[in-house]
Amino acid sequence: MDRIHIEGIDPGIIAAAQQRLDSLTKPQGSLGRLEEFAKCLAGITGNRMPPLFEKKAIFTFAGDHGVTDEGISLFPKEVTVQMVYNFLEGGAGISVLARHVGAEVIVVDIGVDHNFDENKCLIRKKVVRGTKNMRKGPAMTRDEAVRTIETGIGIALQYAEKGYGLFGTGDMGIGNTTASSAIASVMTGSAPADVTGKGTGISDEALGHKVRVIEDAIALNGPNRTDPIDVLAKVGGAEIGGIAGLILGAASQRIPVVIDGLISTAGAIIAYGIEPACRDYMFAAHNSVEKGHRVMLNTMGLEPVLDLGLRLGEGTGAALAMSLIEAGLKIYREMATFDEAGVSKELT
Amino acid sequence: MDRIHIEGIDPGIIAAAQQRLDSLTKPQGSLGRLEEFAKCLAGITGNRMPPLFEKKAIFTFAGDHGVTDEGISLFPKEVTVQMVYNFLEGGAGISVLARHVGAEVIVVDIGVDHNFDENKCLIRKKVVRGTKNMRKGPAMTRDEAVRTIETGIGIALQYAEKGYGLFGTGDMGIGNTTASSAIASVMTGSAPADVTGKGTGISDEALGHKVRVIEDAIALNGPNRTDPIDVLAKVGGAEIGGIAGLILGAASQRIPVVIDGLISTAGAIIAYGIEPACRDYMFAAHNSVEKGHRVMLNTMGLEPVLDLGLRLGEGTGAALAMSLIEAGLKIYREMATFDEAGVSKELT
Repeated sequence: MDRIHIEGIDPGIIAAAQQRLDSLTKPQGSLGRLEEFAKCLAGITGNRMPPLFEKKAIFTFAGDHGVTDEGISLFPKEVTVQMVYNFLEGGAGISVLARHVGAEVIVVDIGVDHNFDENKCLIRKKVVRGTKNMRKGPAMTRDEAVRTIETGIGIALQYAEKGYGLFGTGDMGIGNTTASSAIASVMTGSAPADVTGKGTGISDEALGHKVRVIEDAIALNGPNRTDPIDVLAKVGGAEIGGIAGLILGAASQRIPVVIDGLISTAGAIIAYGIEPACRDYMFAAHNSVEKGHRVMLNTMGLEPVLDLGLRLGEGTGAALAMSLIEAGLKIYREMATFDEAGVSKELT
Repeated sequence: MDRIHIEGIDPGIIAAAQQRLDSLTKPQGSLGRLEEFAKCLAGITGNRMPPLFEKKAIFTFAGDHGVTDEGISLFPKEVTVQMVYNFLEGGAGISVLARHVGAEVIVVDIGVDHNFDENKCLIRKKVVRGTKNMRKGPAMTRDEAVRTIETGIGIALQYAEKGYGLFGTGDMGIGNTTASSAIASVMTGSAPADVTGKGTGISDEALGHKVRVIEDAIALNGPNRTDPIDVLAKVGGAEIGGIAGLILGAASQRIPVVIDGLISTAGAIIAYGIEPACRDYMFAAHNSVEKGHRVMLNTMGLEPVLDLGLRLGEGTGAALAMSLIEAGLKIYREMATFDEAGVSKELT
């Protein structure tokens, strides 16, 4: 990760953006968070008039989880592979929503226990064939964890080079709410019970079991909160590392990145632990039903764009939020000023 | 208003839509409110597989308000006319956001104190040249109020005939948060102070004055809560009546209608008072900063789609919400089922 450098945001650009927003034909501040999005985009891109996003991509990182051996999900492990094919066929939730907002879905096999054939929408960068069962030992070695992050960074640099102006993150991996809640617990110093939800929809009883599995995994592996790579290796997952890397890479290229729900935010908090400056390049897409999500957002000081009761993952929330962030940019670029439109300003 | 009839929603269609949603490749209920939107659209259209919206329109009703004589706004009255020209030129907030979501903006002069030339984006259906100052007497006569509603109904029927599948409401009128808060107060039985906000951004002191103006207008005119047309006439506005009519007309044609913020919701609560069945055809676009808005939504049992701190009006929130409602429809229509995609269902 030596090859990336993340710059801070220039407050001068934010102030200039505020000035432009206040010159547009609307009462000051009346477009609320759309105005905030526009200011952030000016700061992120370092451009007082950020260009429209010519190309947008959602990177859906897929990986399997050994902890599924503990019976923590409602769905069998095979669904990870089946859903990757569903993404590639265009029939999944993220496929539909990405089309709706004009974004591409790029699926990344970073840790699925299956060999996929070549496909133009699939990046094959497998680091592991599924993680190990974290209740029995570390999910990954430290070297594997580093390689998942490096993979994400590499993809970010590659798509920045290709001219993509807005990234979204997404995930697929049966068992990955368990890993993400474990990360949330360690990185925010919360009890597992306070950051663990029902994932795909398990019963109250199964939720109790899931919490115990996370408690056991943390107790056994002793992840070190001050060393995010250690946390990722011991109780994380390959797709979570890929997402962390994508975020770091995006920030290094001054590309805004929209973070989906629980799993993506687990990746985000790993990235934030490695380099806190990356936070200013992130937008939190939505407020997931999974309670660990909000705890991590609070730790990073991020406020979600949407609150639609989503808990699907894949990048679905990120796709929807992308369109609103883009709306903020268009307001900033396309609205007439009071002078241009000949509209009277406030009475003084 | 005898010519319209609003049917109730068939619970059989809602149940069938739920069944389809549960067959799609996602954990049940995991797309949250997008699933709710899809079900509502099936119910509203009376179609188990509602078609995509070929054409969408936001109707921005414009009117002037005599109560501006009382100095309740930060902007001079002339801004209503200037902003109508800004809409027609495409430089306003609603112009930008409607373009972003693929909707047309149809501006309706229903009560502006100015003669506009013909324009393809402007419907000229002036009922009044601004309302009268409601602190001195009724804002409109009963006949004028009825004609504003009839105008809205007529426009809805016309655009239904033209094949528009989704409507949004919007408003322009300096002084119209004062009228809308007065309507909110009467129709929800709340004290004016509990439903009155700062509009375009007036000071605390000016807010106190605005509340007193509303109290005076209600005390003087004695609007009858059980007679919504009386309320509209005495303390309302022409654009608010037009919006009420548009909603009634949309519901009669089984067309979903997205309600913007405070002013549009004042129109909605008038429509709801006239015919409560129209409620099931409405989507509440967003949670406005104006506090009277939420009080009216609660009375009607509507939950807003977005919460972005907006307080601009014009239909800006409606435009943004339209895209999310459309996303719900696409999920419903385009996602693969478990069988189609060969994805394993839940473990049993």
